[in-house]
Amino acid sequence: MTINIGIIGLGVMGADHTEIIHSKIANAKVTAIYDNNIDQAKKIKNSLGNLEIKNSGLEVINSKNVDAIMVVSPDKTHVEFVLECIKIEKPVLCEKPLSHSIKECNDIMEAEQKKGKRLVQVGFMRRFCPTYQEMKKNYTTLELGRALLLHCVHRMVSAPSYFESVMSIRSALVHEFDIVRWLFETEIVEIQIIKSSIRKELNFVDPIIAIIKCANGIIVDVEFNANANYGYDVRAELVCEKGTILMSPSRKNELMINNKHSFSYSKDWRPRFADAYRNQNQTWINSILNNTISEGSSAWDGMISSLIADSGVKSFKEEKSVKIPLQKRPSFYNI
Amino acid sequence: MTINIGIIGLGVMGADHTEIIHSKIANAKVTAIYDNNIDQAKKIKNSLGNLEIKNSGLEVINSKNVDAIMVVSPDKTHVEFVLECIKIEKPVLCEKPLSHSIKECNDIMEAEQKKGKRLVQVGFMRRFCPTYQEMKKNYTTLELGRALLLHCVHRMVSAPSYFESVMSIRSALVHEFDIVRWLFETEIVEIQIIKSSIRKELNFVDPIIAIIKCANGIIVDVEFNANANYGYDVRAELVCEKGTILMSPSRKNELMINNKHSFSYSKDWRPRFADAYRNQNQTWINSILNNTISEGSSAWDGMISSLIADSGVKSFKEEKSVKIPLQKRPSFYNI
Amino acid sequence: MTINIGIIGLGVMGADHTEIIHSKIANAKVTAIYDNNIDQAKKIKNSLGNLEIKNSGLEVINSKNVDAIMVVSPDKTHVEFVLECIKIEKPVLCEKPLSHSIKECNDIMEAEQKKGKRLVQVGFMRRFCPTYQEMKKNYTTLELGRALLLHCVHRMVSAPSYFESVMSIRSALVHEFDIVRWLFETEIVEIQIIKSSIRKELNFVDPIIAIIKCANGIIVDVEFNANANYGYDVRAELVCEKGTILMSPSRKNELMINNKHSFSYSKDWRPRFADAYRNQNQTWINSILNNTISEGSSAWDGMISSLIADSGVKSFKEEKSVKIPLQKRPSFYNI
Amino acid sequence: MTINIGIIGLGVMGADHTEIIHSKIANAKVTAIYDNNIDQAKKIKNSLGNLEIKNSGLEVINSKNVDAIMVVSPDKTHVEFVLECIKIEKPVLCEKPLSHSIKECNDIMEAEQKKGKRLVQVGFMRRFCPTYQEMKKNYTTLELGRALLLHCVHRMVSAPSYFESVMSIRSALVHEFDIVRWLFETEIVEIQIIKSSIRKELNFVDPIIAIIKCANGIIVDVEFNANANYGYDVRAELVCEKGTILMSPSRKNELMINNKHSFSYSKDWRPRFADAYRNQNQTWINSILNNTISEGSSAWDGMISSLIADSGVKSFKEEKSVKIPLQKRPSFYNI
Repeated sequence: MTINIGIIGLGVMGADHTEIIHSKIANAKVTAIYDNNIDQAKKIKNSLGNLEIKNSGLEVINSKNVDAIMVVSPDKTHVEFVLECIKIEKPVLCEKPLSHSIKECNDIMEAEQKKGKRLVQVGFMRRFCPTYQEMKKNYTTLELGRALLLHCVHRMVSAPSYFESVMSIRSALVHEFDIVRWLFETEIVEIQIIKSSIRKELNFVDPIIAIIKCANGIIVDVEFNANANYGYDVRAELVCEKGTILMSPSRKNELMINNKHSFSYSKDWRPRFADAYRNQNQTWINSILNNTISEGSSAWDGMISSLIADSGVKSFKEEKSVKIPLQKRPSFYNI
Repeated sequence: MTINIGIIGLGVMGADHTEIIHSKIANAKVTAIYDNNIDQAKKIKNSLGNLEIKNSGLEVINSKNVDAIMVVSPDKTHVEFVLECIKIEKPVLCEKPLSHSIKECNDIMEAEQKKGKRLVQVGFMRRFCPTYQEMKKNYTTLELGRALLLHCVHRMVSAPSYFESVMSIRSALVHEFDIVRWLFETEIVEIQIIKSSIRKELNFVDPIIAIIKCANGIIVDVEFNANANYGYDVRAELVCEKGTILMSPSRKNELMINNKHSFSYSKDWRPRFADAYRNQNQTWINSILNNTISEGSSAWDGMISSLIADSGVKSFKEEKSVKIPLQKRPSFYNI
Repeated sequence: MTINIGIIGLGVMGADHTEIIHSKIANAKVTAIYDNNIDQAKKIKNSLGNLEIKNSGLEVINSKNVDAIMVVSPDKTHVEFVLECIKIEKPVLCEKPLSHSIKECNDIMEAEQKKGKRLVQVGFMRRFCPTYQEMKKNYTTLELGRALLLHCVHRMVSAPSYFESVMSIRSALVHEFDIVRWLFETEIVEIQIIKSSIRKELNFVDPIIAIIKCANGIIVDVEFNANANYGYDVRAELVCEKGTILMSPSRKNELMINNKHSFSYSKDWRPRFADAYRNQNQTWINSILNNTISEGSSAWDGMISSLIADSGVKSFKEEKSVKIPLQKRPSFYNI
Repeated sequence: MTINIGIIGLGVMGADHTEIIHSKIANAKVTAIYDNNIDQAKKIKNSLGNLEIKNSGLEVINSKNVDAIMVVSPDKTHVEFVLECIKIEKPVLCEKPLSHSIKECNDIMEAEQKKGKRLVQVGFMRRFCPTYQEMKKNYTTLELGRALLLHCVHRMVSAPSYFESVMSIRSALVHEFDIVRWLFETEIVEIQIIKSSIRKELNFVDPIIAIIKCANGIIVDVEFNANANYGYDVRAELVCEKGTILMSPSRKNELMINNKHSFSYSKDWRPRFADAYRNQNQTWINSILNNTISEGSSAWDGMISSLIADSGVKSFKEEKSVKIPLQKRPSFYNI
């Protein structure tokens, strides 16, 4: 059986998801696409062929030739499309964030619960990254004892001109919020943002350090650096009682030239997380085929990461540690 | 469009290929399988469902529900199946070797040329391994100057009981023969096998070193070690005029425990070449879909690697350097 | 010319210093030693020969056969011996801390200034560690831009039974206090200690994270972990505007055995800092021979690190960020 | 006690040895020097002071203020100076080669045996290199089983204009000859030189591969590359039955800048073997102080390495494997 996929939004990641589904995923094909930039949609149709360009996201969702939907449109449009998918009971993989608004996240969860069926996956792709999966496997299967600390580095080459400090938290650090909760199967209870004061020429604060405390006592520190310059670099070191697990940069080759022994970093997140995106999308397709729930982020997870981001923004503004106003997880979202 | 695949032979690699096509490849599905071990065939059908168990390899090839065939059966059966595929003009991906017999290889090439159409790909998967592809890309695009030497290591954990010295050459070193010709786009002209004399308790010579000379002057040395014990390890270092390219072992995580900082090796070739097999199979499917010729090994390449292996065996027996009796490549097999 | 060295205190580091001076340092020899454990002193005399065992530290200092003194006795005795050395104008290398008491540090600085001559070096050996020296050299000579963050890891294998939380700050983190000031040639202005709450079975808090802010805006985070279990591990990553400098664990060999590729950690600080101690001692001897001031820590540096430690202890107790009550550096201690 | 050292020859290595003895070695000082370039001698005296410039090598050797001699003069002068040292029974550390002439080596051995006292050490410093020492220690103490193969890489940045192929063997590969014999405590019985044919613009053959066979069956391959361009690089991988030992390039820091993660190579052998030279010289001084025999190369070892070099040159010229005409080791030279 082949799952027919509709894709809404064909920007950098939308185009990437279309290409991934088209050429790297078993048992799926892209049948309908929409972007408000019609030229971009046409370009993709020309290169991949044999798919329909729809006139709106809602048309994609409601197409008879579409079994499941990927929402890769601008953040603020996510809620409308996800609610429509739930309404007609089609599975949806929504890029993060589900919504920056907790109220909208709650609307989605309410709608999904009413249908009595898990339909929403949020695109926190790191859960499917082999380096994080190996870390979790090593942590849970080796005799390393309890986890104590997680040191994280999250570096971009350079921030786009429209970047601002809330994006450091809401768009970047959310990845760490989600992966920490998944890795340790615990909740984050407190967050403190520490600001660097050196790059005064920027119109936002960069880098920042987030200190995250988990319900079970694990402490996580994250350097987020939007202008690391040298390369896109995301890694982590997990300190356990009897040893640590280090996620080291991948390399296919090492070069020795000009007195240097080196390997290369990529310039953005796509090569770093290429396997993660492929695994995420394949696992999502498999979960539809097999009618099971994947270990991807649920609507609940999407809401929680936005909730932590809210507290992160508060900590950033008030310059103090902030407790997360956690709610009880509905049993519907138990793993 | 979906390509229907028939798979002949369901041993370790046959089962693996079936799983790869089934769950990791776009635009393909396994529709028919055969193995003379019927239980193995049933086991695979039970786990993957929705495919037919045929009564013979020829039945797989001739099935209406089969567009293309993977031959993963015992070495000596390859020629019959490949010739049948050519006869009815269905594309075939034949695991290496095409045949240990140069005559049989020539029969295949003759049949294929008569059809006037490239139908045969030989499963030298290293050509699709990202570490080798990156090496070739770095070598041809960076300003490293001419290639001078290639140092290769090819280590298995331990040899099966039936292993013998000709297998070190015909089954193992053939991978280096093929990858060297692909990497440097040159022919191998001479080979010398150097024998270790220490492990007298084995019933074959292990390790051996092969010294390979290329038409363009590049010298390749290969350690083949069937009992390396510590892990499956295949890597290479390419020495060019201005620098070298080192293929280093991949690692997802590094562990620090018990006074050690470590990463792990796999026990056999499948994790090492998982990406290579997936890329090979996807590229093969794409070449069928697009009616193009992939950069996979042709019947000619398959024949040449067996020809070099013959000279390797001769060098092993006569304990001297042996020149390869090269023929001229038919233009049909030009790249 | 040969400098005659007297050594007071022959515990682990005192014995090590004696051995270093005796067998690895040019232009110096150990001529007098003292320890209140007379057996330990005799043992060292027996192995090294040709040196006098004195009846007290003061006797060592005042011996005619002693040109310069190393104080490696218990922390609380440092001040008396250092003051005596100043009194008779003999150079002294005092193991850290100079004193935990700021008043005693000030007494030492006052006495030294009265003599109008720099006589005291404090044994913060990391300044002489090739990995830190290379980091400073790279940072100041490469075009990496301004330093932004320093991530530090300071891990011991396991804490001795008498360990307590103030020692994490006063005995361990002081190394980071000193090295940060040396590396960035700036002052530390604020410190916050973040406590892990997981290892409740210990009678002290472990690990802790220190967040250190420098006058020039650089932020330093330090994991101090007294029970890292896997090995002694001290390293740092310096994040600058255009790139980072990573101090990676040294290794002489890598082993491939039992499915692992590994290198080893030492169990304590001595192998990790063997080069640092040797360089420190040689540089100190050279500064005596040449009558110059080494780049080792001065009495002022010793006082400042104790002052920061005081604030660290306060932050630990009060669970909030604490500003360091900095004084103005006397010009006598300018570099 | 302090050993007074005379140094004959003040070229690159002679100057280096003078500096090492002067500033890094315990219990030794340089008291007399000679070079036929008087300006170079004066320059060194000016920088180190307090030593005598002599009018000839023989004057250095016979000076009352000299206890032991380092011969660092041109190769062809070694035999005269070493014989003079033996004559007056002063210990001598002679840079390699002892002599390229087997007859001269035999003359030295004969003279030394007549004195009944080991006086000669040959400066094969790799025996004192921590990376080789750790390899030998790991090999002999870990349960790796028998050694099977050793892969060696010996690369210079670029050859001086006067370089020629016999120097690749006599000046460069001799280091591998000596270290292999020391590492495995066995003799080398056969050698084959394999020539690269690509760099026809050079007036010598570069790179070459040496295949070395040991009496106990171990096979060693060495890439010698006089124009590796990217850096000075000497390393080895020892393949044993149950695992391998890899000597990896040392690094103090790793840099991440301009999309690269890198560490640096040195441009010549001095930084790579700085520890080796220091350890060699200190061990030699200690052996004089303690009247013991160091594990440095003896006159016998010096002769053997020249003997293997002769066979290497023969193999190079005749393009075939050559057996070494080994003699029996006099018991005087037993270890």
